[in-house]
Amino acid sequence: MAEDTREDETILADPLPAEDGAHPDDRVDDERHDEENRLKPDFVRAVRAALEDGDDTAVYDLVEPLHPADIADLLELLERDDRRELAAAITDLMSSEVIAELNDYVREDMMEALPPGAVAAIAEQLETDDAVQLIEDLGPAEQRAVLDALDAEDRAAIESALAYPEETAGRLMSRDFVAVPEHMTVGDLIDFLRDEGNLANDFWEVFVVDHAHHPVGSCALSWILRTPRSVALTDVMKRDQTLIPVTMDQEEVALMFQKYALISAAVVDASGRLVGQMTVDDVVHIISEEAGEDVLLLSGAGDGDINEPIRDAYTARVRWLIANLGTALVASFIIAMFGAAIEEMVALAVLMPIVASIGGNAGTQTMAVTVRAIAINQLTEANTGRILWREMRVALLNGATVAVVLGAATAAIFSPALGAVIAVAMVINVAVAGLAGVLVPVIFERLKQDPAVASSVFVTMITDSMGFFAFLGLAVASGIAG
Amino acid sequence: MAEDTREDETILADPLPAEDGAHPDDRVDDERHDEENRLKPDFVRAVRAALEDGDDTAVYDLVEPLHPADIADLLELLERDDRRELAAAITDLMSSEVIAELNDYVREDMMEALPPGAVAAIAEQLETDDAVQLIEDLGPAEQRAVLDALDAEDRAAIESALAYPEETAGRLMSRDFVAVPEHMTVGDLIDFLRDEGNLANDFWEVFVVDHAHHPVGSCALSWILRTPRSVALTDVMKRDQTLIPVTMDQEEVALMFQKYALISAAVVDASGRLVGQMTVDDVVHIISEEAGEDVLLLSGAGDGDINEPIRDAYTARVRWLIANLGTALVASFIIAMFGAAIEEMVALAVLMPIVASIGGNAGTQTMAVTVRAIAINQLTEANTGRILWREMRVALLNGATVAVVLGAATAAIFSPALGAVIAVAMVINVAVAGLAGVLVPVIFERLKQDPAVASSVFVTMITDSMGFFAFLGLAVASGIAG
Repeated sequence: MAEDTREDETILADPLPAEDGAHPDDRVDDERHDEENRLKPDFVRAVRAALEDGDDTAVYDLVEPLHPADIADLLELLERDDRRELAAAITDLMSSEVIAELNDYVREDMMEALPPGAVAAIAEQLETDDAVQLIEDLGPAEQRAVLDALDAEDRAAIESALAYPEETAGRLMSRDFVAVPEHMTVGDLIDFLRDEGNLANDFWEVFVVDHAHHPVGSCALSWILRTPRSVALTDVMKRDQTLIPVTMDQEEVALMFQKYALISAAVVDASGRLVGQMTVDDVVHIISEEAGEDVLLLSGAGDGDINEPIRDAYTARVRWLIANLGTALVASFIIAMFGAAIEEMVALAVLMPIVASIGGNAGTQTMAVTVRAIAINQLTEANTGRILWREMRVALLNGATVAVVLGAATAAIFSPALGAVIAVAMVINVAVAGLAGVLVPVIFERLKQDPAVASSVFVTMITDSMGFFAFLGLAVASGIAG
Repeated sequence: MAEDTREDETILADPLPAEDGAHPDDRVDDERHDEENRLKPDFVRAVRAALEDGDDTAVYDLVEPLHPADIADLLELLERDDRRELAAAITDLMSSEVIAELNDYVREDMMEALPPGAVAAIAEQLETDDAVQLIEDLGPAEQRAVLDALDAEDRAAIESALAYPEETAGRLMSRDFVAVPEHMTVGDLIDFLRDEGNLANDFWEVFVVDHAHHPVGSCALSWILRTPRSVALTDVMKRDQTLIPVTMDQEEVALMFQKYALISAAVVDASGRLVGQMTVDDVVHIISEEAGEDVLLLSGAGDGDINEPIRDAYTARVRWLIANLGTALVASFIIAMFGAAIEEMVALAVLMPIVASIGGNAGTQTMAVTVRAIAINQLTEANTGRILWREMRVALLNGATVAVVLGAATAAIFSPALGAVIAVAMVINVAVAGLAGVLVPVIFERLKQDPAVASSVFVTMITDSMGFFAFLGLAVASGIAG
């Protein structure tokens, strides 16, 4: 399996040879990065101190050795005012890569401080997809002003991207790709690539197109390099391609790249013409975002970006707190129904939050599993029944275990009758939690809603209400209170 | 910005030309896939029916047109017994790609049903990294039996990978890469690639190494293809590389690939020798897993994989329910302290869960934001203070808003005094929730613990206890009860 070009070295025989002193990696273990490749706090403090002293030369010398992605990280770590000062002190280091790597909110904030001409000058340095990201967040008037300041070709490219809905392939694709006609040989292609000065910066595949510019196949560069010049491209190309429709949602694009292990893929319009390509390095950010956003959505934290303006974070979160207030009132109403029982036996008030809390926790567990399985296309109509049955069995096991522990403790401290009541209530509530934890997200998915957005509120309402109702209701029905 | 090889076509001018009838993509819109590229339930039902009829030819005909990744999806959607029947019916379609794409639990379960010789035969077809995944999940005795059945070269490769800790670059890297000496020209390299029959399947970069096999630079294939044959590799290679230490944790590897937009990277041992490469298509799975696991960990759902055996799901989840029982007892203890007040005024029992519930929700919001920011290296020591202050301001705004609504409603329904008490308790609890939501995960991170694992239990304990304590305590202190 192993491949090595030098026969005298056996890489496999000795995976951990003795240290010979030299350390290979200057990017991980240097004086600016910690062991997790984050900028060290001391380094950030030094930059901050130099900015405060107004010592632009010191600032420049500190920042100059950094990779553009690290300069972006540094800007994000600084306060707002320091960011602008830093950008002013290192103008020639503020490359398009830095801008492209910046957090959306930080970039937007920094761009709003610049005149449209300056934003346009930055946009012209960027790849179309990055320029679109830069411009799409601006207000309509600023957007217009920046577009007007661009040269005609760039403006047309960006406007055509902006014509597609947000978060679709059309917005995200690169218009920078290599497409060649079917009649070429490997040799023709290599000559073409050598002669053509104005090629895409990085490309991993060459697309072969027919007379109508429909992609008919693709050639990985590694195949081209190992094939004799005389071979026709149509003999070496892969015909079975994954084509991305230009209107496809970014989440689906990300899942396609994952599922088929793609490095790049052709983007086609409604008539099947090749209009762009997506490469995996752009998709990687989407994969991370889409996979990470569920935890934020389920908790009701909106975008959950620490760089989001405070007023946006406030409005995103307070909505869910108010919604939660509504559902908590339902639970309170149920408690109020049993007011007489609680007055008679205050132990009920002491114990009732336990039943609700464990139920809520069990519901959250099942809901998280369900939402994640839906997000990665593992849970579909074809296996919903089986997964529901699976989760019910886990819930019954969990409910029984907790019921035994809590029932025994309650029996010892209060009374055996109360222990029995709380144990039965516990099993009921954890079983209901399991049911709700699967069904609520599945129903949202069937209604074409994102299950991560509102499932939490409903599951919590169900487990809280059922927890109080089962416990207090059983206490009254069994005659031990009320 | 746009690049097109045919001057007569202007891709940019017409992003959405009229339909011309042909549909470009057979993989997305066929009779087997729905619009989200999942296998249609009808298709899965047809396969299931054919399996039940024992009609292996029908099964084969149905499955044959599928991509290996879709065959893996199909296996995951079926019940356990059907999986084994399907695998038996389509043996020659069960390629290494299918095995590599399978969910870990499903693969493990299917492998356990096979004799070691059969597992070894499959492992020999796989790339080393996929073979390691296959073998690392087996029990020690089965692992030994499979290793013994492998040929010597493959066994050595897999054993050397297994010598590294789980979830490190050493386990995940491919030993299949192209490395060439410094003295080569572009022409030498192309000739070498054409002549060498036994090359890595797919590669995107060629590594240039010195006499001690230390990587000194890398050449993207697109640079090689556009450079004249006479140019020396050392003149075209990129010297500034991101090297992955062989012991680096997969989460850090994934963050490196994201941060520096890598397609492939050299993996080096402690002495700086090139021992493998990682490519982005392998890293993509890790990115998705690592980003997605926080929602499962925070909810206490363990691995949270719907294919996990029920007993594993049970033990993973019940631990957290029992832990939650412990923290709920703390809250109960606080309620018990105020038993007399509740007996006197049952409205306290009705309202107290609201204060705890909203506090819990606010704490979960802040905690989710904090855990996510830590996971993507956005929250470090350098900006913790600023983020804490930001979250406190959001919490105070949220607390004040909810307090006004809840206070007014309580004043109208019960009494103005109780409304004032619940409003103040609400502000206190949401502020405490904001503080705990940042500090608990940050403290776990400083203690080198994964903040997603146990933060939830502590934050919930704090917000529950503080909710009951603030509300009941203020009610007693203000003299309206107890």
